[in-house]
Amino acid sequence: MILHDFLPSGNGYKIRLLLTLLGKSFDLVEHDITKGETRTPEFLSRINANGKIPALEFDHGRVLVESNAILIHLAEGTPYLPTDVWERTEVMQWLFFEQYDHEPTIAVLRSWVGIKGMPEHADIFVPMKRAGAKKALDLMEKRLSGHNWLVGDALTIADISLYAYTHVAEEGDIDLSIYPGILAWLDRIAALPGYVPITWKP
Amino acid sequence: MILHDFLPSGNGYKIRLLLTLLGKSFDLVEHDITKGETRTPEFLSRINANGKIPALEFDHGRVLVESNAILIHLAEGTPYLPTDVWERTEVMQWLFFEQYDHEPTIAVLRSWVGIKGMPEHADIFVPMKRAGAKKALDLMEKRLSGHNWLVGDALTIADISLYAYTHVAEEGDIDLSIYPGILAWLDRIAALPGYVPITWKP
Repeated sequence: MILHDFLPSGNGYKIRLLLTLLGKSFDLVEHDITKGETRTPEFLSRINANGKIPALEFDHGRVLVESNAILIHLAEGTPYLPTDVWERTEVMQWLFFEQYDHEPTIAVLRSWVGIKGMPEHADIFVPMKRAGAKKALDLMEKRLSGHNWLVGDALTIADISLYAYTHVAEEGDIDLSIYPGILAWLDRIAALPGYVPITWKP
Repeated sequence: MILHDFLPSGNGYKIRLLLTLLGKSFDLVEHDITKGETRTPEFLSRINANGKIPALEFDHGRVLVESNAILIHLAEGTPYLPTDVWERTEVMQWLFFEQYDHEPTIAVLRSWVGIKGMPEHADIFVPMKRAGAKKALDLMEKRLSGHNWLVGDALTIADISLYAYTHVAEEGDIDLSIYPGILAWLDRIAALPGYVPITWKP
């Protein structure tokens, strides 16, 4: 398998972390999104018409996109995606929450503060994103203040997905110290056997 | 089952349409999101801590949230969610695309133009949302110009999910006439036996 990715990307890191926890080997091909390398005609036609990483290319040529869809694909049949129908749906709920409420605020702030630089009209956008980020983290804290994991009593791809941008939220000047449940959960994940940091590559 | 919903919501309509196609009966409880009715203490504590509709309440008290997670839950074991592992993943890809690229642009424009009214700084936000909407529709057209359905050769929840806000995109002053593949697909869905319009309620 070839993972088309950009190392600072949390969306890419979700896949790197799950593949490593599953003990699956893969190659990494890096595409610098800050230089438009996912918007070349070749990338758009062969890898992802939506011009984004991560994309997971299989030996038979098939390419999967959308980080959370890739997580579901890889986790099916493993302990990271429960078989219980209600727990599965809870996992899905968190995955859609991640793409709608969490990534567009927390990942975007990190990108502006630490990667791409501030956008035009930052005075309008940044407070709006900070309010959204707070709402998303409040909702996670509500769960994690009373539970070790987002779903059930074991790690699932819901945790992996939400870990990716939460654990680097402070790079977007988001203060996590007011969220003890989230902080303990971050430590719990970083202590997993086989854990690799976001800077790691195969 | 009780569907907590707001009739103009495309996210809610996804569930209404799938339940009807599946021949499942349900009750509808309406909550006017323009009046803050999903942000009351009672709604937040009993129905959805994230303050959103749709939410599907089962007789035993369990409540499901996130429209696309509810679609997956209801479609599992039906023809609307394929058993083939690659087709399943394609469905998931479209569902995450819907929540990340499509709903935040196309549904939001419709809400501003037709439901809630323009936001502050509309001169900045609207062109940005229009560019995002065009990108999302271009990607759908790329698939639908050569295929009847988004995944495989039959209707899936990917079609139901993306139909919801696409078929009312013109309420957000989005011109669909330049997308013949999308228009033919919209007609195909509206002609399904058991189809109900967004204004229908049980």
